[in-house]
Amino acid sequence: MRITTLGLDADDTLWHNETIFRLTQDRFRGLMADVADPSVLDDRLAAVERRNLALYGYGVKGFTLSLIETAMELTAGQPDGRVIADILAAGREMLAHPVEPLPGVEAALAELSQDYRLVLITKGDLLHQEQKLAASGLGELFTAVEIVSEKDAATYARIFSRHGAEPGQAAMAGNSVRSDILPALEAGAYAAHIPYPLTWAHEMAEAPCGNPRFAELATIDDLAAWLRTIG
Amino acid sequence: MRITTLGLDADDTLWHNETIFRLTQDRFRGLMADVADPSVLDDRLAAVERRNLALYGYGVKGFTLSLIETAMELTAGQPDGRVIADILAAGREMLAHPVEPLPGVEAALAELSQDYRLVLITKGDLLHQEQKLAASGLGELFTAVEIVSEKDAATYARIFSRHGAEPGQAAMAGNSVRSDILPALEAGAYAAHIPYPLTWAHEMAEAPCGNPRFAELATIDDLAAWLRTIG
Repeated sequence: MRITTLGLDADDTLWHNETIFRLTQDRFRGLMADVADPSVLDDRLAAVERRNLALYGYGVKGFTLSLIETAMELTAGQPDGRVIADILAAGREMLAHPVEPLPGVEAALAELSQDYRLVLITKGDLLHQEQKLAASGLGELFTAVEIVSEKDAATYARIFSRHGAEPGQAAMAGNSVRSDILPALEAGAYAAHIPYPLTWAHEMAEAPCGNPRFAELATIDDLAAWLRTIG
Repeated sequence: MRITTLGLDADDTLWHNETIFRLTQDRFRGLMADVADPSVLDDRLAAVERRNLALYGYGVKGFTLSLIETAMELTAGQPDGRVIADILAAGREMLAHPVEPLPGVEAALAELSQDYRLVLITKGDLLHQEQKLAASGLGELFTAVEIVSEKDAATYARIFSRHGAEPGQAAMAGNSVRSDILPALEAGAYAAHIPYPLTWAHEMAEAPCGNPRFAELATIDDLAAWLRTIG
């Protein structure tokens, strides 16, 4: 078997994530309904998040700070205290949100773990990602967990090498073309895109359909069959 | 040489950290001077931080959120917008703060890296710790960087093992008895305490002076000589 090591994204590949951010954003729209149209608010929030990304990175705490900053901008620096209180509460609820594997994930990983070393590769807040993995009950199926600040080709090369795989022996699966697919392919590994119904605007990118090491899969159930085709 | 691998804490061992938090806390006292006595404010902030620690973990973003929450509590939920704006600005400044190695650190690490595998072992925000290491210019001296959500005996055992060292071949050095010394000793490694003038209340603990694998050092300059005494 050529492939020895399978990297798996976590958020929106193994469990819901973007949905929880969107629900919080909906709540924020409601909170700010007297102050800003939803589309104005969404644009402003996206701009604040983009501006803060290099400093805050990915995750709930940075998102919570960006919500507060957006509320400040939209109220000329004088938001109602209830808005701040509700944003803080929403952030805490996101961090404490129950984690449930997406349909099919547990069975698929149990099968895949028989044949491959599974490595969880995820961005986000270190503590929160560890907590989500623990809460998911999937931790035992993984050989290793790699929480990283950015997913680029060098990140994948380093992780696969650390786990004893040449790029050609490794595959990555995830919902983000930008973070899970393109840089893994660039590192020389195989990559399978498993879409999630929602994608954060920052993660949008076009699927590299011409690449022979790339596959577009409907669900995680198709991953084992695809890996076997690699040889 | 018995010791092959030397773990080093980062914040307040290699560069200032607590000082920057204290300066922000001083600024927060000034901001809230009309609202709360400094000692009341400090107590309230400490309580909020303690309550949030399990959810936020360590680092600037969680601290910033705790400052906002403290301001909310001390103003019956209606803080002045300028207070929130200033807390957000302070958090960003902490994240963008220049990093300069503490006196003697660069020379000591350059020497130690000749004889030992140096592994940076630190808590905090993943992205921010990576950025601080890059900004410090010390990155090249380390064999590996391990950013962890909690420093307990299992963490040290796992990290030393990953880098090929039995506990008895590993030593840890840092400024926190609670995080750097006691759990490393518990894991069976050697440990050297290098105090920093300030210690966060949460990190306070008594030095294990009776332990033969423990040393209290005045500065990082003394680390190489102590490691040689281990044999």
